[in-house]
Amino acid sequence: MAALTERRLVSFLAQRFGADAPGVELGIGDDAAVLAPAAEPWICSVDASVAGVHFDTRWVGHEDIGYRAFQAAVSDLAAMGATPSAALSALVLPRGSPPRAIDELTAGIAAASRDTRCPVVGGNISRGGELSLTTTVLGHAARPLRRSGACPGEELWLVGAVGLAAAGLALLRLSTSRAVPACAGDRATPPLPTPSLSTPSLSTPWADAGVERCIAAWRRPRALLDEGRELVGRASAAIDVSDGLAADAQQLAAASRVRVVVDRERLRAALDAALFAAARRLRRSALGFALSGGEDYALLASGPRRLRPARAVPIGYVSRGTGAFLAVAGRLVPLRGGFDHLRT
Amino acid sequence: MAALTERRLVSFLAQRFGADAPGVELGIGDDAAVLAPAAEPWICSVDASVAGVHFDTRWVGHEDIGYRAFQAAVSDLAAMGATPSAALSALVLPRGSPPRAIDELTAGIAAASRDTRCPVVGGNISRGGELSLTTTVLGHAARPLRRSGACPGEELWLVGAVGLAAAGLALLRLSTSRAVPACAGDRATPPLPTPSLSTPSLSTPWADAGVERCIAAWRRPRALLDEGRELVGRASAAIDVSDGLAADAQQLAAASRVRVVVDRERLRAALDAALFAAARRLRRSALGFALSGGEDYALLASGPRRLRPARAVPIGYVSRGTGAFLAVAGRLVPLRGGFDHLRT
Repeated sequence: MAALTERRLVSFLAQRFGADAPGVELGIGDDAAVLAPAAEPWICSVDASVAGVHFDTRWVGHEDIGYRAFQAAVSDLAAMGATPSAALSALVLPRGSPPRAIDELTAGIAAASRDTRCPVVGGNISRGGELSLTTTVLGHAARPLRRSGACPGEELWLVGAVGLAAAGLALLRLSTSRAVPACAGDRATPPLPTPSLSTPSLSTPWADAGVERCIAAWRRPRALLDEGRELVGRASAAIDVSDGLAADAQQLAAASRVRVVVDRERLRAALDAALFAAARRLRRSALGFALSGGEDYALLASGPRRLRPARAVPIGYVSRGTGAFLAVAGRLVPLRGGFDHLRT
Repeated sequence: MAALTERRLVSFLAQRFGADAPGVELGIGDDAAVLAPAAEPWICSVDASVAGVHFDTRWVGHEDIGYRAFQAAVSDLAAMGATPSAALSALVLPRGSPPRAIDELTAGIAAASRDTRCPVVGGNISRGGELSLTTTVLGHAARPLRRSGACPGEELWLVGAVGLAAAGLALLRLSTSRAVPACAGDRATPPLPTPSLSTPSLSTPWADAGVERCIAAWRRPRALLDEGRELVGRASAAIDVSDGLAADAQQLAAASRVRVVVDRERLRAALDAALFAAARRLRRSALGFALSGGEDYALLASGPRRLRPARAVPIGYVSRGTGAFLAVAGRLVPLRGGFDHLRT
C-alpha cells in the first residue's frame, strides 16, 4: 500500500472486500450500504475487539486480530440460528500504524468474511490512541433463537468445544514472558518463543498437537453457524459462550428465569483431549479453562431430550429456580466468574 | 448508578433505551436484536466518534458527546433519503470512567435516539484506553439516494447550514485556551470561560446570538432526515457534509464522474448570519469555515432545476469533467482540503 490517505484506504478496502454478494445492492463507498429486503426478520448485533483488553499485539498478529474479531461478531448470529447477510467493519487505527498492519488486519477480516459468507459492505476508519475493531453483523432468521426460552425439565446442551481458546491464550501469554511451563515428565521442553508480529508460527519445536490446537482455537475461532441453524426448531434457548461457560450459563438462567445446572462429570467427558494436554503443560485445571474461558464461541442451549441434535452434547439440565450451578457428586456449587468487560 | 458491572450496566441501558418501538421484535439483552422484515431495501451505516480525534472532553460534556455521535451516524441515513429503523451503540469506556460520565453519555444518546425516532436496540460495552462511540444505524428507503447519480447540466443544492459547527468548534477550543478572540470595536469582550465537563452553559456573558448558535450547531447537530426524504425523486445524487463542503463536493464529483462547481457568491449568500458573526469574532473567514468545516451534517445534492425542493439552495452546478471547483469571478479554483480521518 502507498502512503495512507482516507480515500486511498477506502478504495483499497472496496477492492479487498468487493461485496458482489447476493442481496447486496450497494457496498462500500457511499454514505451507507443498501441491502435487498428479506422476507425473514433481521438479526443485528455489534461486537468490539480492543487492544489491551481483547488482544495484545505482543502475542497475536494483525491478521489473526482481524480474523477473530470478525468471527466473534458473527458468533452472535450463530447463537440466534441466523444466516449472515452483511457486516460493517469500523476500525480505529493508532497513529503511525504501518500500512502492513492495516493490510494484515483487513486480510484477516476478509478471510473471516469469506469463511462465514458474510460480505463486508461498509465501515468506518478513524485514527485513535489504540487499535480497535467494532464489527456490526446483520443476518436473517425465520425463527430466531433467544436466551429466554429455557424450560424446567429440559436438557442443557453444549455444541462445540470450550476451554481450548482460554488455554491457547494462556500459552500465548506465557510465550511472551518466555517462561517455561514445565510439566511433570517433560522437563526437556524448550522455552516458548515470542511469536512474530505478523503470523505467529505454530510449527515450533515445543508445539505438541494439544498446544497447537488450543492456540489455533484462540487465534482462529469459528462461529458455529451451521450448528446454530441446526438448533432452530429443537432448542428452546441458546447463547454463545463468549464470556465463559459459567458466565453464559448464568445469563441463560437469568434470561429464562430458570436454574441451569452443569454436571461436572458430563462436562469433563465432553472436553477435548487437547485441552487436557494443554492444561497439563500449564499446570492448570482443564475444567477451570472450560468454565471460565470464553472465546471458543461454542453454543450453550437447552431443549427437550428427544429433539437433541447429533452435534449437541448433554452436559446438564434445566430446573425450576434461579442461577447457574455445577453439580459435583450430587451437590450444587454456584457457578461464578467469567469475563466482565468492565472489570478488565 | 451503583458500582459498575457489565450486567448492571446492560440492565440500566435496557431501561434507558427501552426500545418498545414499532418493528423492534427483540431489543437489548440477547445475543442480537431482531427487527421485523421490511418491504423496502435496508440501509446500513456505521460511524465512530473517538476522544482526541472527534472531540475533547476538555470542551464538550458527555451528554453532548453522546448526542452528536448518534446524530452524526443517523446523518448517513438522511443522505440516503432513508427512514431510521434502529441503532446499535458500541461504547469503549476508559478505565475509571465515573458512573456519572456513563449516565450523561447514554442520556445524550437516548435524547438523539428520541429526536431521530431511531431506537437503540443493542450495542456493546468494553473497557479501553480512550472513550469512543461507534454507532451503527439501520434504516429503510424505497429509492435510496446515492452519491453517484449527478449529471452534467444539473444544479448543485445545499440543504441546511454549513460552517456553523466548525466555527462553534473553534470557539470552544478557544474557550479552553482562555485566549480572548478580540475583534475590532469589541475590546471589552470578557475571556471565554472553560465550559463545565457536564453541560457547558451557553448563557455566558460573552455569548452573543451568533456565537451561541455556532456552538450549539457543533454540540447538538441534527441529521436532516425530513430534508433527505424530500430529496428522493428530485435529487440525482446526495451526500452529507460531514468532512467539509470542499471534501464532500470532491466525493460527489468522484462518485458521479462529473465536475462539481460551487459558486462562491451563491455559497456566500447561502451562509447563515451567525457564521459571519462568529467568524468576525474569531478573525477568520466565514467562507473558509463553510468550505473546510464539517459536522453540521448539511446535505449536498444535485438535481434538475425544475425539481429543486423549497429547502434546497442552489450553490453551483454540475458539468462534464472531473473534480470539485470554486467559481470565483468567472475563474475555477480547485477545491482542496477537508477532514481526512487518517491525518489527524
